[in-house]
Amino acid sequence: MNKKKHTSALSEKEGVSISEITNKNAIANIRSKRRKEWSADQLVNGIINRDKVALSKAITIIESKSIKHAKKAAQIIQKCLPHANQSIRIGITGVPGVGKSTFIESLGKYLTSIGKRVAVLAVDPSSSLSGGSILGDKTRMEELVKDDHAFIRPSASGESLGGVARKTRETIMLCEAGGYDTIIVETVGVGQSETAVHSMVDFFLLLKLAGAGDELQGIKRGIMEMADAIVINKADGDNIKPARRAKTEFTRALHLYPPKQNNWIPKVTIASALKNSGIKESWELIESYVKTCKENNYFDQHRIEQNKYWLIQTIDEQLKNRFYEHPEVKDALKKQIKAVSNNEITPFEAAYYLLELY
Amino acid sequence: MNKKKHTSALSEKEGVSISEITNKNAIANIRSKRRKEWSADQLVNGIINRDKVALSKAITIIESKSIKHAKKAAQIIQKCLPHANQSIRIGITGVPGVGKSTFIESLGKYLTSIGKRVAVLAVDPSSSLSGGSILGDKTRMEELVKDDHAFIRPSASGESLGGVARKTRETIMLCEAGGYDTIIVETVGVGQSETAVHSMVDFFLLLKLAGAGDELQGIKRGIMEMADAIVINKADGDNIKPARRAKTEFTRALHLYPPKQNNWIPKVTIASALKNSGIKESWELIESYVKTCKENNYFDQHRIEQNKYWLIQTIDEQLKNRFYEHPEVKDALKKQIKAVSNNEITPFEAAYYLLELY
Repeated sequence: MNKKKHTSALSEKEGVSISEITNKNAIANIRSKRRKEWSADQLVNGIINRDKVALSKAITIIESKSIKHAKKAAQIIQKCLPHANQSIRIGITGVPGVGKSTFIESLGKYLTSIGKRVAVLAVDPSSSLSGGSILGDKTRMEELVKDDHAFIRPSASGESLGGVARKTRETIMLCEAGGYDTIIVETVGVGQSETAVHSMVDFFLLLKLAGAGDELQGIKRGIMEMADAIVINKADGDNIKPARRAKTEFTRALHLYPPKQNNWIPKVTIASALKNSGIKESWELIESYVKTCKENNYFDQHRIEQNKYWLIQTIDEQLKNRFYEHPEVKDALKKQIKAVSNNEITPFEAAYYLLELY
Repeated sequence: MNKKKHTSALSEKEGVSISEITNKNAIANIRSKRRKEWSADQLVNGIINRDKVALSKAITIIESKSIKHAKKAAQIIQKCLPHANQSIRIGITGVPGVGKSTFIESLGKYLTSIGKRVAVLAVDPSSSLSGGSILGDKTRMEELVKDDHAFIRPSASGESLGGVARKTRETIMLCEAGGYDTIIVETVGVGQSETAVHSMVDFFLLLKLAGAGDELQGIKRGIMEMADAIVINKADGDNIKPARRAKTEFTRALHLYPPKQNNWIPKVTIASALKNSGIKESWELIESYVKTCKENNYFDQHRIEQNKYWLIQTIDEQLKNRFYEHPEVKDALKKQIKAVSNNEITPFEAAYYLLELY
């Protein structure tokens, strides 16, 4: 009797009919369902106890587009929040071919060797077009993937930048709650995603190559300005000399920019991820940055500013989405654009007309 | 009897009490009021008939913050719209000290001498802080001010950039309706106003100086990219040689940028506004640009794109204004920012909470 009561209590929870519970198969079925669908508490406990499976499952829920998952995702994040924020967040960018994956793998291996726990994430809103250009192929970091103290997660693809950014930020928090003390966020240096990544990390590193006219033409305006450090990669063999020259040039160029809020003057260093040289130096550079910023209180202040930025950013994005997805606005917008194009109405009048509709 | 009826009809319109009309003074008073307050039709007729006073009065109504004037402003613009758009709109920017006023005066004088009608406007949202740094002192263009075929109007100051931009765009339309075929919009090269001005003109001209390290450090990233031409000003006396060298350097630098949509490669020329040299050449450069763009249909297409840009821009700005000025949001925003700063809530959750309130 007692046992039956127990199973019928379960049936309510799991939404299984009474008739199903009358045989053992059904009970096994419930157990398997339970194994598959972890509760928010189970996931959070798993994450905090450094269970990679729980972390992966939780990230999948965060990345899910299903409404069913949205509430659960919010619960998980809220519960992880008190355990988050204890990490160094590093953004790494560079054009394709610069050797980002190799560099991140070398850096990651070095970090786990000195006792760090490393999570590698990627922001690449373009990956649905390019077929997943970064981290899509996990084998590109095959050594790091096998490392117990490393966690690698490719980007949620085929999303708006805003969506990807939000999910990446939330994933950072979960990784932090999971005890990862160094978070690396990779991004491909060709789009708007740099600004997004720059706004969620403590340190922003730009990977460059020497030669090939890269010194001038490859510099995306704005990205140079964001960098806290530039690492000239592939500085090996015949490349060492040009790399050193590039180092001098970039150091000079970086001095032309107005000083950063934290008084940090961006540094330039050379490395060969392939030959494992310059990796320790790159990390020491990051450490000295963090030390400086923690001493002058910039580190925490910067994170608060980033949070405020994301608050405002999310509001602005949502305001626009809600407006432009409003059915009446959608219809009227086309007509107003046509009227504006034909000079029948000023853009301002058309705008106010649409706002009134809304 | 008949006369009395007439005056009492007036009294209703003008809001004057019956007792006031009982004497001649009061009637004179009404007439004087009428002289002062032109109707929208009167203003539009005046503008079309090239009456500078009507144009000035209409611009004042557009610039007014009073709600009473908003409706009238809309009427004026709507009625002017069919007469607008027949002009070349030129944006001119450059850092303080580069000689913008002198250059605009020289160019303006040259243009009126070849039969053009020139309107000079200014966008300077910072002028309330700087005390009106551009065009504020009309005497800086004292020759052009006296020219019958020129119209000079300082910027509406102390406004948000969005507000100033809107009013400037509307002022451009009124000037065009007033028969001005060349509109020059001046902006000071230190802020966001360049983007706004760039989005309302057909041709964007950057004034530079040779020497003084200006070649590299003075270049506001983004502004160089916007320029359709660079004029190296103050190329006189000992400055001619450095100016020629700067011309070569800028020409080379401009070739590094990706080509513009219209296939126009930005040109560099030298001038001395003070000595009146290079002014004709600057104008011929603008003319050749306009010719190219009209031939490949870019000119009209570009204006349509600009109108669409302003439509979307105005909507976005208004959506934000309305949200952040909402009383409940205002109160809650402070609390949410605090909670976000204390890591009690994620920025995304805070954003959605505020959006729900709204």
